[in-house]
Amino acid sequence: MNTIFSKLWLDYRPLDPSFTGRVAIRCPSRVDRLGAAVSELITALSAMLPAAELTFGADSAAMIFELDIADFLSEEEYTVSSDERGAAILGGTEKGLLYGVFAYLREIRSAGSFVRMSRRVRPAVGLRMLDHWDNADGSIERGYSGRSFFFEYGRLIVNERTEHYARLLSSCGINAAVINNVNVRGDAVRLISEEYYSELARLSAVFARWGISLYISIDFSAPISVGGMKTADPLDTSVSYWWQDKVRELYRAVPSLGGFLVKADSEGQPGPYAYGRDHADGANMLARALKPYNGKVIWRAFVYNCSQDWRDSRTDRACAGYRTFAPLDGHFDGNVILQVKNGPMDFQVREPVHPLFGAMKHTSLAAEFQLAQEYTGQQLHVCCLIPMIRDILGFRTYNGSSADTVLDVISAAAAVANTGDDTCWTGSELAAANLYGFGRLCFEPQLSAEDILDEWISLTFGSDEQVRETLLYILLGSHKTYEDYTAPLGLGWLCKPGHHYGPDPWGYEFDRWGTYNHADRDAVGIDRSSNGTGYAELYNYPLCRDYSSPETCPDELLLFFCRTRYDHVLHSGKTVIQHIYDSHFDGCEQAEEYARLWDSLEGRIDNRIFENGRRRFAEQLRSAREWRDVINAFFHRLSGIEDEKGRRLY
Amino acid sequence: MNTIFSKLWLDYRPLDPSFTGRVAIRCPSRVDRLGAAVSELITALSAMLPAAELTFGADSAAMIFELDIADFLSEEEYTVSSDERGAAILGGTEKGLLYGVFAYLREIRSAGSFVRMSRRVRPAVGLRMLDHWDNADGSIERGYSGRSFFFEYGRLIVNERTEHYARLLSSCGINAAVINNVNVRGDAVRLISEEYYSELARLSAVFARWGISLYISIDFSAPISVGGMKTADPLDTSVSYWWQDKVRELYRAVPSLGGFLVKADSEGQPGPYAYGRDHADGANMLARALKPYNGKVIWRAFVYNCSQDWRDSRTDRACAGYRTFAPLDGHFDGNVILQVKNGPMDFQVREPVHPLFGAMKHTSLAAEFQLAQEYTGQQLHVCCLIPMIRDILGFRTYNGSSADTVLDVISAAAAVANTGDDTCWTGSELAAANLYGFGRLCFEPQLSAEDILDEWISLTFGSDEQVRETLLYILLGSHKTYEDYTAPLGLGWLCKPGHHYGPDPWGYEFDRWGTYNHADRDAVGIDRSSNGTGYAELYNYPLCRDYSSPETCPDELLLFFCRTRYDHVLHSGKTVIQHIYDSHFDGCEQAEEYARLWDSLEGRIDNRIFENGRRRFAEQLRSAREWRDVINAFFHRLSGIEDEKGRRLY
Repeated sequence: MNTIFSKLWLDYRPLDPSFTGRVAIRCPSRVDRLGAAVSELITALSAMLPAAELTFGADSAAMIFELDIADFLSEEEYTVSSDERGAAILGGTEKGLLYGVFAYLREIRSAGSFVRMSRRVRPAVGLRMLDHWDNADGSIERGYSGRSFFFEYGRLIVNERTEHYARLLSSCGINAAVINNVNVRGDAVRLISEEYYSELARLSAVFARWGISLYISIDFSAPISVGGMKTADPLDTSVSYWWQDKVRELYRAVPSLGGFLVKADSEGQPGPYAYGRDHADGANMLARALKPYNGKVIWRAFVYNCSQDWRDSRTDRACAGYRTFAPLDGHFDGNVILQVKNGPMDFQVREPVHPLFGAMKHTSLAAEFQLAQEYTGQQLHVCCLIPMIRDILGFRTYNGSSADTVLDVISAAAAVANTGDDTCWTGSELAAANLYGFGRLCFEPQLSAEDILDEWISLTFGSDEQVRETLLYILLGSHKTYEDYTAPLGLGWLCKPGHHYGPDPWGYEFDRWGTYNHADRDAVGIDRSSNGTGYAELYNYPLCRDYSSPETCPDELLLFFCRTRYDHVLHSGKTVIQHIYDSHFDGCEQAEEYARLWDSLEGRIDNRIFENGRRRFAEQLRSAREWRDVINAFFHRLSGIEDEKGRRLY
Repeated sequence: MNTIFSKLWLDYRPLDPSFTGRVAIRCPSRVDRLGAAVSELITALSAMLPAAELTFGADSAAMIFELDIADFLSEEEYTVSSDERGAAILGGTEKGLLYGVFAYLREIRSAGSFVRMSRRVRPAVGLRMLDHWDNADGSIERGYSGRSFFFEYGRLIVNERTEHYARLLSSCGINAAVINNVNVRGDAVRLISEEYYSELARLSAVFARWGISLYISIDFSAPISVGGMKTADPLDTSVSYWWQDKVRELYRAVPSLGGFLVKADSEGQPGPYAYGRDHADGANMLARALKPYNGKVIWRAFVYNCSQDWRDSRTDRACAGYRTFAPLDGHFDGNVILQVKNGPMDFQVREPVHPLFGAMKHTSLAAEFQLAQEYTGQQLHVCCLIPMIRDILGFRTYNGSSADTVLDVISAAAAVANTGDDTCWTGSELAAANLYGFGRLCFEPQLSAEDILDEWISLTFGSDEQVRETLLYILLGSHKTYEDYTAPLGLGWLCKPGHHYGPDPWGYEFDRWGTYNHADRDAVGIDRSSNGTGYAELYNYPLCRDYSSPETCPDELLLFFCRTRYDHVLHSGKTVIQHIYDSHFDGCEQAEEYARLWDSLEGRIDNRIFENGRRRFAEQLRSAREWRDVINAFFHRLSGIEDEKGRRLY
């Protein structure tokens, strides 16, 4: 494992190197002086005021920082009021206090001085979780940032990097982490057995100090694979007893455990279907075992037939999650959270919002995003997901209540982590913005993408205005750019099968994954109206109406919902085919501009970061040209229609 | 490693269990009584006449077998004359004698009795070689029959299976084997170093007893990877000295070594290009090191640009081998053999014969075939290659000499092995026919495919007439059947990239491998005439003329050589598109019939073989339907033309 790591946005630099006065930290005894909040403040002040005299509780001081716990605040809530002579920070608990310290530090570091601020904040989403797809052997499924820093050769690792990881999460507001892959394989099956308890306890203690709950992905058939039983039937009493014993034992060793994440009956993972049970049976059985310890079951809704016959055009994978889980609304126990991917397919750069968010009224929901850029350029292409996540959280479900956005209906948000043991944690330095932004959005979703990026840029790169403007321009445009050259009008899955990098427009067309574009010489797209697969009808009115017709469907989702001829005219006034050509040429030009703009930062940012970025922007450009030429060639060969602008098609 | 193995066609069964007389083997002292020829005869007679009294040299005997070496025969030549009371077998050397013994045993076992025969045979091709793509770690590249039986965890293995393998090869006339992959990786790089010598010596001794020369694939950059030098430049004297020393050392330890096989400057393998040298420079340098020991360099002509830009339609991979090697004709030393794949691409089910066979007049050539069914169903589909190999050997090159077939111009033939540690050696029992047939064809190419299969069936399955007829029908039709549902009119590479199993008609279209079909809504195929890539011009007259026009090009190669519209009418009278539809439906029906026919053999053949076959025929049928529907859907979506017969297209 690579033990050298960047501090990312927590690299505290001197703010006033010449300040030599006394700085006092004051807190009553109910605040833990060895806790993370106080220690983070000390770490930061020591670095920002390197010549100052730092004391606890001195009466006279040039600057005073008061920290306290306040009953009138909820657990994770904080207030900060500050001026140039110090700050008063209150938290509902140590956790809230820690968030307050981080908020204050963010503010003064962004401003570059000890500014006046006054703020009271509590997180919008209760559970803000990172899902790691790390395998026990140290590999990471869909990992583009090196190897796991949790696992090595089947062993669980806790070291200095783990501590810094916890600080990074906490500083952007994340309060839970699942450390192992939802596809539970190899040694990971035995994470819930004796041999791992002491290391799990150590890890959970590090996490807890930074307000992070440790979760584990479990094998639904653990009674068999770990317990040596003959069944994992959730309605078999010997199975539920086994789980009760197992959970009791686990909590005895790891008292602060958050709970379990479960991928069941999905892509080959075991689940309740094997025993003729439904997902509520499966989830509730585990939930009851966890309940005495306030543990939670996060149950993934990503269930579909991954052995579909491509010849069967009536079956639509997009419907599967809804059809499986909507009938179970109200059947889940209170400590079950159903984790729903942001869209009905699988983290494409453009999908409609998952219809389950508008359907489940009596079920705790988590929205699941994917920071690991599996389908969005694998951290070789820049693709800032903050605007997309923000849009999804703000998406109205029309579920009949007055507060009907996704944000209103969820109690949790999870994101597949984009981290690994790379020196810069996320493969590309720019991809760290997605990690930071996910946490910040879950905490304060009213922040604009620009606000968040502004923060992240100044904390990471300092105050150079050209750096700020350049990165803002690149990051804010990057998602549309990636969409432009890879996924026209809501058409996903044009990527190479398996590894999902680079274009292969019919690579999935005749396969078992339910991800078809149905392109032919005349038309393209899937009719998901009531005349087609019926998927559009899974949305509440007026969405179901809007999505059912090319006249009302947003252009950006047109080919997801409607089958249209190449000469169909979009709301934009362009034909479908001309839009395809134009967006691919435009996206590619943007990629060229990004590479040029990045080059202009040479000497203004750290050289290691610059060189890493240069290599990646060069690869993005090469790949964008590949995408442009392949997708345009594909549709040109099918449609026979020339580009209006006479550009070269192959 | 699986050490249980079938004896395949060498399972000697009783011929006359009631015969109790005396049987004498007579041979003068110049015949080695412990040699393979005598011992094979004893093994066979003991099994065929289990009640007989077997003696050496007795005067009075009911049956007499006389073995001798005869000066008037060439090294591998033999004569057999026999009647119901015995046989006289002569060989030019022990090797010829062994071939004579095997020929005699074949004859009487096929006939089911001690028949009269009289024959004098010498092999048509001098070097008859099997190329194993076994890696040192025990995996086999493009292996569909289990793991390697030569290598396990980097170690070289010599055991009972090795001995039986050598017998199998010898019995069908193969006289050389390359034991490791042409892509030399991992521990295999060090096969030519001290640590492997003692095992190589053991293996070569086993091989030599059965008339088989051991060859090794070497890393062209071994002076660097093994020798620790800074260069592998073939014109650097320190490099050639290094090879001379290495070869001297190697032959001291393994005196019967045949030589080296080299894949240079191909698909990432190192070669002379790195030093600005050509392939003759590279091959001759090695040849000179090997010459004192009568060693040979087999140099592969499979050189092409595997990083082609698909947008570049002027570059044609098919031309690459010719353009690289034709200018070097006459530049190679006498102990270099240029190994040329049967076609210009890579072992597709249908390709034209490689134009180098008609171009090289002063270079020893080997024709390379692939028994491992990489592109022909991976031993899950039955695909008997004997008729194809026979056709290629008989193909006229029109090189201006009176004997101008491929057989006439080659001095060697090589085949990529289809073996592994499977109990039945070749994944499917039926695939063993390819191994047997390759050896037999190289020895006696005048035999018809039916002759050879007849032999193989009776030696393997005995004399059941229904078994014979059924297998003959399946095997003789199987290549056309496979071609029908996978590769219409010479169009290859419609398979899935990477593993090459199953259909993906545009999986290679926008990739770097130079394997494009250029299908669009109007036409398909590559113009390789002088108006196109010019490939057809690499053939001698009249082939270059015939291949250049749809009017004269054979239908089966039409889309390889000519770009044609879907409504173009073939010599068969069908349109291109209708041919595509019909052949796919026909091929699939054949696959159905094969499965039915195989089922009819239940109880008539060994049950393990029957069940193994049943599973494979079921998979072939499933896969054939997949091929039919995908390829037909692909061309239907592009062309928009309906099937004349109104069958279901997707």
